[in-house]
Amino acid sequence: MGAGNHQTPGLMKPKADMSVVDRILNGEIRAAARLIRDIEDGRPVAREALKTLYTSSGQAFVIGITGPPGAGKSSLADKLIEAFRGQGKKVAVVAVDPTSPFSGGAILGDRIRMNRHASDDGVFIRSMGTRGHLGGLSAATSDAVTVLDAMGWDIILVETVGVGQDEVEIVRTAHTSLVVMVPGMGDDIQAIKAGILEIANIFVVNKADRPDTDRTVRDLENLLDMNLPSEDEWRPPVVRTVALRQDGISELMEKIQEHRNYLLSSGRLARFEEEKSAQRFAELLKEGLFRQVHDRIQHEDRLKGILEAIVNKELDPYTAVDRILEEKLK
Amino acid sequence: MGAGNHQTPGLMKPKADMSVVDRILNGEIRAAARLIRDIEDGRPVAREALKTLYTSSGQAFVIGITGPPGAGKSSLADKLIEAFRGQGKKVAVVAVDPTSPFSGGAILGDRIRMNRHASDDGVFIRSMGTRGHLGGLSAATSDAVTVLDAMGWDIILVETVGVGQDEVEIVRTAHTSLVVMVPGMGDDIQAIKAGILEIANIFVVNKADRPDTDRTVRDLENLLDMNLPSEDEWRPPVVRTVALRQDGISELMEKIQEHRNYLLSSGRLARFEEEKSAQRFAELLKEGLFRQVHDRIQHEDRLKGILEAIVNKELDPYTAVDRILEEKLK
Repeated sequence: MGAGNHQTPGLMKPKADMSVVDRILNGEIRAAARLIRDIEDGRPVAREALKTLYTSSGQAFVIGITGPPGAGKSSLADKLIEAFRGQGKKVAVVAVDPTSPFSGGAILGDRIRMNRHASDDGVFIRSMGTRGHLGGLSAATSDAVTVLDAMGWDIILVETVGVGQDEVEIVRTAHTSLVVMVPGMGDDIQAIKAGILEIANIFVVNKADRPDTDRTVRDLENLLDMNLPSEDEWRPPVVRTVALRQDGISELMEKIQEHRNYLLSSGRLARFEEEKSAQRFAELLKEGLFRQVHDRIQHEDRLKGILEAIVNKELDPYTAVDRILEEKLK
Repeated sequence: MGAGNHQTPGLMKPKADMSVVDRILNGEIRAAARLIRDIEDGRPVAREALKTLYTSSGQAFVIGITGPPGAGKSSLADKLIEAFRGQGKKVAVVAVDPTSPFSGGAILGDRIRMNRHASDDGVFIRSMGTRGHLGGLSAATSDAVTVLDAMGWDIILVETVGVGQDEVEIVRTAHTSLVVMVPGMGDDIQAIKAGILEIANIFVVNKADRPDTDRTVRDLENLLDMNLPSEDEWRPPVVRTVALRQDGISELMEKIQEHRNYLLSSGRLARFEEEKSAQRFAELLKEGLFRQVHDRIQHEDRLKGILEAIVNKELDPYTAVDRILEEKLK
């Protein structure tokens, strides 16, 4: 990788991107923060940097934290940071809010709780919001995790605000996903989306000093019983915590370690990485192909005519697409 | 369209698809039901039929109904069917459940309430669930609406089970979207996603005989005040109903008519159709291009090698995609 030093300067590529990458690989926080902002904004320079950083990634362990607003996810993240720091691990946090336009390092709402770690060099906290396109947030989060991973953070916590489909997509890129609940959700347990049940590796019932705790834990266990895993599969444990009082944190840390061991010993980690790579490749290919063709027909001044014909029902969108696909094959 | 009768039989295209289309345009329920099932299954024959049906669509008025489970959406849909039938309109209902694998005409949960209309020729009720790929459900719903529209149904109700991102995408294809709430949601109003607020044209507070009704209506109005529309824009009204007792249904019907008038008089309907066409075209193009290239590199036996290199960090997914895009340009 150091071969560039031997090249004649005149033949070298522009250094701008290289230096950003080098600075990030050297652990420079400010360079990483700026690149993550470029990722959010979809700037091409970010994509170039990611090419190099990707090949240096793959060492970090990624933990997703999702659950309804008010479940205490940030307090829980705060305690997990503390626990991992106690083990000497470096921890980065990506706090994702699909409903918020705020980003670029803004600390959202009660995430201020995590702020006490701000002076600790072994902790890095970054917020991401919807800058523009919603669908791109899960891809942007995945890219941000790649940056932090390449940078050498041992643990990356990805925290989301809600439990919608966006959050499912975001948390799906984590090795171990925690779904945080609060007691007394009542009917809401019924409303848990199939997707959430699929992504949860560990359920956390936080604020477990509240009266309805036993019922909520029982409801969750029943739900899990209805979806019994096959023999060698992981059954998500239900862990009780009171994050603000530190209760249950060490048990939660144990379960996280157990799940990690399971991923490693069962060969699921390898399969997980394969699936994640295939998905990321497919997303990028889809987006790239579309942009290429869309730009071309727009440049050829054909897009407006096609869309008008579709609106006027003179042309159907299926045939319009078929024709473009046939052009590409020529 | 009758020109085919004059052709030499040997020169005619296979009749299979044609006859399905003709039967649907003639109003045959069974043909439509089968095509909608083919759409869910993503069968190519459905796509061919949609080409013709699309150009015959564009007359129906589409109403979306979304809201949390238990809000009484099906009871409300039942009363709206009755009211539109009273005006002599033909009504089709597409009941969408992104969390359910059931489909193909199954009536889900309390949707049985709408069943009393089953013997009425002027009413057609169809359920759609997630057969396989989740992301495809909003596209499949859009296609199903095209079929029912071409068939001549005056009103198409699209009802969803929840308020997640899937539902937002599904309801976004409706001309007028109702978001149904129940009193006493408390903090849940805070948790209403930005997306939901954007798509709601009319808020319905159902079960409005409950004690917390005034507070819920006030909370909604406050929320709307914080997002004041500009002068010529529609401000979503908040309508109180008790669907089971028929209360508020005529007011709701008036508000639906008002919104329809607004769409027509403001020119928003035309813009809505333009945006919908552009979006559908983009989705189909993205999917078609991806499938074409993905199939090609899989057929050339290159996909596995690319994915392995990505997993092993020898190749990054961005460069992999760039290379494929460059091939396409040659």
